[in-house]
Amino acid sequence: MQQLEILIDRILSRVNLNLRPFNFKVDESIRNLVSSEKLTRFYGFYGVTSQHPLQFNFSRSNVGGSYFLGKCVVDHSILHKCDIRGDELKRKGDTFEHNGGTIVLGDDEIIRIRDSFLIHTLVHNYSHDPEHPEEFLIQNTAAAHYANIHGAPVEGCFLGPFATVDLCTLHGCKIGTFSYVQAGDLFHENIPDGTIWVKRDNFEFRYTFDEKGLAPYIHFEPGKLPEGIIMDFVESRKEGFREVFENPYCELPIDVPEGSAVSPYSVIRGQTVVQELVLVSQRAYLDSAWMGPGANAQENSYIINSRLEKNDVTAHGAKIINAHLAERVFVGFNSFVRGAEGNPLKIGKGCMVMPHTIIDLEEGLEIPAETAVWGLIRNAEDLKLHSIALKDLETITGEVSLGNMVFKGNGKAFADVFRKRIDHILEVNGAYYKETGQKGHAQDDSFISFNIIQPYLTGRYKGLFPTIDIRP
Amino acid sequence: MQQLEILIDRILSRVNLNLRPFNFKVDESIRNLVSSEKLTRFYGFYGVTSQHPLQFNFSRSNVGGSYFLGKCVVDHSILHKCDIRGDELKRKGDTFEHNGGTIVLGDDEIIRIRDSFLIHTLVHNYSHDPEHPEEFLIQNTAAAHYANIHGAPVEGCFLGPFATVDLCTLHGCKIGTFSYVQAGDLFHENIPDGTIWVKRDNFEFRYTFDEKGLAPYIHFEPGKLPEGIIMDFVESRKEGFREVFENPYCELPIDVPEGSAVSPYSVIRGQTVVQELVLVSQRAYLDSAWMGPGANAQENSYIINSRLEKNDVTAHGAKIINAHLAERVFVGFNSFVRGAEGNPLKIGKGCMVMPHTIIDLEEGLEIPAETAVWGLIRNAEDLKLHSIALKDLETITGEVSLGNMVFKGNGKAFADVFRKRIDHILEVNGAYYKETGQKGHAQDDSFISFNIIQPYLTGRYKGLFPTIDIRP
Repeated sequence: MQQLEILIDRILSRVNLNLRPFNFKVDESIRNLVSSEKLTRFYGFYGVTSQHPLQFNFSRSNVGGSYFLGKCVVDHSILHKCDIRGDELKRKGDTFEHNGGTIVLGDDEIIRIRDSFLIHTLVHNYSHDPEHPEEFLIQNTAAAHYANIHGAPVEGCFLGPFATVDLCTLHGCKIGTFSYVQAGDLFHENIPDGTIWVKRDNFEFRYTFDEKGLAPYIHFEPGKLPEGIIMDFVESRKEGFREVFENPYCELPIDVPEGSAVSPYSVIRGQTVVQELVLVSQRAYLDSAWMGPGANAQENSYIINSRLEKNDVTAHGAKIINAHLAERVFVGFNSFVRGAEGNPLKIGKGCMVMPHTIIDLEEGLEIPAETAVWGLIRNAEDLKLHSIALKDLETITGEVSLGNMVFKGNGKAFADVFRKRIDHILEVNGAYYKETGQKGHAQDDSFISFNIIQPYLTGRYKGLFPTIDIRP
Repeated sequence: MQQLEILIDRILSRVNLNLRPFNFKVDESIRNLVSSEKLTRFYGFYGVTSQHPLQFNFSRSNVGGSYFLGKCVVDHSILHKCDIRGDELKRKGDTFEHNGGTIVLGDDEIIRIRDSFLIHTLVHNYSHDPEHPEEFLIQNTAAAHYANIHGAPVEGCFLGPFATVDLCTLHGCKIGTFSYVQAGDLFHENIPDGTIWVKRDNFEFRYTFDEKGLAPYIHFEPGKLPEGIIMDFVESRKEGFREVFENPYCELPIDVPEGSAVSPYSVIRGQTVVQELVLVSQRAYLDSAWMGPGANAQENSYIINSRLEKNDVTAHGAKIINAHLAERVFVGFNSFVRGAEGNPLKIGKGCMVMPHTIIDLEEGLEIPAETAVWGLIRNAEDLKLHSIALKDLETITGEVSLGNMVFKGNGKAFADVFRKRIDHILEVNGAYYKETGQKGHAQDDSFISFNIIQPYLTGRYKGLFPTIDIRP
């Protein structure tokens, strides 16, 4: 394990250096979360298509269990069971709007990961940093289980388990467990656990979970694996993934209509039905899930005993159990939405379940159409303090607080941003293909060829992958 | 299929140019042997170990179904279901003896394949050309199904189906169907079908199959697939390989003792038993095979309803059916050895079944120990004309002919060369590991990690593989 150990030391010392203002030692948190043995055990893989510009370069790294699509360079890093999905990167000649200005790309965008240690992390979308439009950089950064790095270049950061950084740029920040941040340029910020923070020029949304409320679902102590209901939930379903990763060429157990795509690296169980224009990404887990037309299940999402009527979005890491979603419901990143068994949660048309929302019920509940919900909801009483009708949200212009949530600014702008985003997600995933003729992932992904790479199994480079360079 | 078609044209025009003295058009023979559709369907793969210097480069090529181990560069070529096994290549600093002179290698040897079209071909061993010790070159060459290029650089050649070129160097040669050539430097030679030719400084062995005798087993007409009993035999067992290639991570159906290796890309069926120090290579097919200690089954070999007692060598492409081999029997390249059902062929200790021998019986037969056999043997009568006791062979000093076989020169030198070679094969395959402590393939091959690469599935590059460069 010689070279692998040296690599881990090298990465952690660099992250530590960036986080010294917080007197935070990433070593203690992350060093023993994945054993060297585990790092050696898994293969990595990358997808080749004729739709995505091709360039991969992996050097001096371990990428075990990770999946890559789109241009990506990985150097001196450990990416353990990560999904690096660069299938929405900007292209040479594309324009990028920012604050009314237009930037024209001089080259294809590339994801560049250096000196970083990411565990079960999802990297997706494209860099929203206007200063480096051709490069989506992740450097000197460590991330624990099921973090999302979504359109957000990060440098010198630590992301706790189930943390999400979304459409922003971070330097030397520490993002707490289960925290969600979408807040522009951040420099040396220490975001406490369970913070949901969305900030734009004209509005700001901030919610903080009660420590006692969040802990049973997810908590993290340095040196230990993350613990709690959400962690147990995903860990107890790992076996299903072992099966599909060991037999990637097995036939899918269900019929997939033309224009829909179900990844061979997803788990499909029970009475699952996939209708047209549906996207089921790799590492999605469907068990008796009814996926209506245009519905999607993104990476690390779980849909169990649930029905998604039409054009519903299940964002990265979201879990939907015992629920019935009407048309066009959005369930945000890492949300955990669990209805009562035998008395499913009903979510009305056009609802917006904010990222990192926990809904966990022991009785039936119905969320009215066109409602935004957030935070921790255990019953109808909680719902009152953690929801707002979109039409009411749109009337806000000053500051409003409700429970642990504070909203400032233009409510209509907030609702519009979300609606626009949901529309964008449906479009790129291919839900509108029949109407517009514009292909999305559900139509393109059928033609991905999967390529498998493995580490050295013996010798001083054990656990490291050979240097590999792939071009058109 | 645009680019793929252009590539095929390019290769064939180059081979044609080299073979113009024979007025031979390789196009007619090889162009339609593999459909473009088939070329797109298969993945390629390469093995990474800590024992073999690592360098692969694949560019502007299709390598569907092919397997690579050891340094190899492939450019502008089509390698369809080939095994390119560079695991015995020479290393920097190694010495290479030739005609009493010693050559020291300035660099690791590499297999370089350019502008060539190889179908089901096995490339193995190292270049025996003393002029280019660091490069095993295959250029401007086409080879049909189940050819072997063994330690033999070839340039501007056509190899017919089941042809073998062994330990020699060939320029602008046409090697007939089922012909075996081990004859030093050859320039513009046209070797007729069914020729078995071994030539060294001090001896020469030459046998030619009767056209009528060989045709039922294998014959080849331009534009058609090879036909005959041997082709039918392998084609009818293809399904077994489809299964293992689609599920490469499935567990083996038998126990493999430590110190033995059974490739996950071999087919294992029936009551097969593998004892210690056994090597079963990828694309070997074992059905109710008893593999005694130190026995091996090399690439493309088939062992069915047979018992190999100890240290038996089944060379590349050899088939053994309904037979009982005593200790230390050698069955050469592409031989087809089939005993009668219920009354198996017995081959005595230390026998040498020459490459490309066909034994096909309807009654029991016993080949006495220490016998060399060749040619076509259908019964005891044939055996008399196609065998010689090694002790008699060793007394030959002039010229002897027997049936269609002519031997000239030093019989003892011939027998010694073969014995030495068998010993070398057993050594490198690991049969002597317990005695010498020197590991061979059976011990090393357990630690190969397999990496999978795939072609573009759509677009103008459909069927071509992305450019890929792999280094330590």
